[in-house]
Amino acid sequence: MNDTFANRMHNVRRSFIREILKVTERPEIISFAGGLPNPRLFPVQEIADAALKVLQQKGESVLQYSTTEGYLPLREYIAKRYLKRHRLEIDPDEILITNGSQQGLDLIAKVFLDRGEQVVIERPGYLGAIQAFSLYEPEFQAIELFEDGIDTEALERTLETEQIKLFYTVPNFQNPSGISYSEQKRQDVARLLKSHKVILVEDDPYGELRFMGRDLASMRNYLNDRVFLLGSFSKIVSPGLRLGWICGQEGAMEKLIIAKQASDLHSNHLSQRIVHQYLLDNDLDEHVLKIRKVYKEQRDVMVSMIEEYFPEETNHTRPEGGMFLWITLPQGISSLELFDQATQLNVAFVPGQPFYVDGGGENTLRLNFSNTDEVQIEEGIKRLAEAIKKLMA
Amino acid sequence: MNDTFANRMHNVRRSFIREILKVTERPEIISFAGGLPNPRLFPVQEIADAALKVLQQKGESVLQYSTTEGYLPLREYIAKRYLKRHRLEIDPDEILITNGSQQGLDLIAKVFLDRGEQVVIERPGYLGAIQAFSLYEPEFQAIELFEDGIDTEALERTLETEQIKLFYTVPNFQNPSGISYSEQKRQDVARLLKSHKVILVEDDPYGELRFMGRDLASMRNYLNDRVFLLGSFSKIVSPGLRLGWICGQEGAMEKLIIAKQASDLHSNHLSQRIVHQYLLDNDLDEHVLKIRKVYKEQRDVMVSMIEEYFPEETNHTRPEGGMFLWITLPQGISSLELFDQATQLNVAFVPGQPFYVDGGGENTLRLNFSNTDEVQIEEGIKRLAEAIKKLMA
Repeated sequence: MNDTFANRMHNVRRSFIREILKVTERPEIISFAGGLPNPRLFPVQEIADAALKVLQQKGESVLQYSTTEGYLPLREYIAKRYLKRHRLEIDPDEILITNGSQQGLDLIAKVFLDRGEQVVIERPGYLGAIQAFSLYEPEFQAIELFEDGIDTEALERTLETEQIKLFYTVPNFQNPSGISYSEQKRQDVARLLKSHKVILVEDDPYGELRFMGRDLASMRNYLNDRVFLLGSFSKIVSPGLRLGWICGQEGAMEKLIIAKQASDLHSNHLSQRIVHQYLLDNDLDEHVLKIRKVYKEQRDVMVSMIEEYFPEETNHTRPEGGMFLWITLPQGISSLELFDQATQLNVAFVPGQPFYVDGGGENTLRLNFSNTDEVQIEEGIKRLAEAIKKLMA
Repeated sequence: MNDTFANRMHNVRRSFIREILKVTERPEIISFAGGLPNPRLFPVQEIADAALKVLQQKGESVLQYSTTEGYLPLREYIAKRYLKRHRLEIDPDEILITNGSQQGLDLIAKVFLDRGEQVVIERPGYLGAIQAFSLYEPEFQAIELFEDGIDTEALERTLETEQIKLFYTVPNFQNPSGISYSEQKRQDVARLLKSHKVILVEDDPYGELRFMGRDLASMRNYLNDRVFLLGSFSKIVSPGLRLGWICGQEGAMEKLIIAKQASDLHSNHLSQRIVHQYLLDNDLDEHVLKIRKVYKEQRDVMVSMIEEYFPEETNHTRPEGGMFLWITLPQGISSLELFDQATQLNVAFVPGQPFYVDGGGENTLRLNFSNTDEVQIEEGIKRLAEAIKKLMA
């Protein structure tokens, strides 16, 4: 059957992380490898109450086919939240409900990317976006992430010398690095994109999970054209519900809706109604505060353990929110080799290489702090420090 | 923003049916236009019970991220059902859970279709497949449907003169025509596809809804290579759950899983667990019998009213299952014009033209009988007969 696959499938491989996660499924392993939210924080009882309510009150309707755009009251809720959080005025008809923001990436690529068109992505960049876009065969230009966001000088040079179609960014607590863009960088990037008419895809699954510092504006605050903001309930309510959204613009919604309809008709209707009922009956802000508090504690333990036990020659980011931090080992120390050492000590992480579309990053790795408790973090970081020291010796 | 869309988006339009459904949403309209199952038959209480059970017993797990392939016990259930219904031996690892079978169409096209490759589709053909495939820019070859399935002579000629990559069929109670393939046609088609190494996509959302005649084999019974069988819970449990599946083969599953992962990571986990619990705690066969009984009654009323009231010059199919039947008006009578006349009489249907990828079908139309009760069917068909007679006069 190998002779029959489409060209677009020839260069894509199964996610490296996915393969790694198999190794880390053994119960004795302390895993910092996954990208999972902490399930102890899922509002299980509240979701059960909401499910029962919508099924008992509107069963026939919630189990029926629905509209491609998504449940209108849910889109209205999302629009109102943008107004409250970012003073963004968004029409509910500019919101399309998707199966998690991953589907948002697929749909945007489907609607905008022709083969060979150029996409700027962060270095390191989010693997899910690399995967989704790759199936539309663009060329990637990877631009270095600094502590305060992308290297805007390099971005400017690239925009001037190359024909860039689209820029993809996770400006808040980026996956994999944990880095956030400063206010200045957000403005600079928006200005550059505007003057070069580049499409911005601002992926913001973690924005609400800020546990330090102050909330910064969405780049959409600085741009009013060619901008797509992606959001998700996965990290603030539950990922099993698979609900995210694209917040786009009038001229593009029609095409996005066509692409969505061709892809799967519409997102899960029952889930949309359950989440909407949950949001009506509960205080999301309060729930998000709870998540932030726990993640901050877990992040703090991880950072302090790293500072206490890791060799001085390693660097790490200090995320102000989200679920990840990023380690840079000394040059010449391979995180792939470290992975083997570490799994022998029953601790796991994700080596950094796959996040670099243009190679490099051999001495980097991603740690997740949301899905392990403080005791596991202490023990896991100690073991990881031991493995690093062994490898450096 | 119009300058920025990908080439693949230039020739696709919003679904015509979708636009029509807007007209037919007025409450005074008797609509045979939609393709909705009868919501009175949804097992609302049983789904509510299942939802409560999985959330109370396994809440943290059902609300978490899950595997791309889909929930294994659900795939095992589907495999067992194929064994029971069709004596097909299918490994659960050859099943990928999708967001309804519509997503199965998108993923298969993504994995197999390069631009310009040729796809054979029935004439009339299923609009959702035309839409999903169109975004991968194939060329369509439409081949006439007879009362007992596709015109196999024309199929053979096409396979001999053209380079056909893929054949798409709905062999049971096809949407839009209601036609089913005879056993002979199934065997003939399988033989032809085999000898020309053509990929078969056998879409079977309605197969369980047979209310007359005897069950026939899946084409997969006659083919053991290059065959993808699509199934769905939409018509036998509920469409709002958005759960279908691709039943593929070892050599292709890896690529399909990559495409699924890039598209949306995995299907709704909560829905998968709810349906699985529902299937454990209830007798699906019994439930399907109930659906068949009601649909048969509705179909019988529609057929007998058509035979009583429609002019002799019209033809109609006599479906043995499913949700649709197909009307052919005398040559020269336009179903688009009829649509305008009919909506003035507060009755609606879907004109046949959009189901013909190569034009034609101006005098055809689709009627849905699953989502109206017997009283509405009697009244609606009388009104439609009146509109037809007016147009023919």
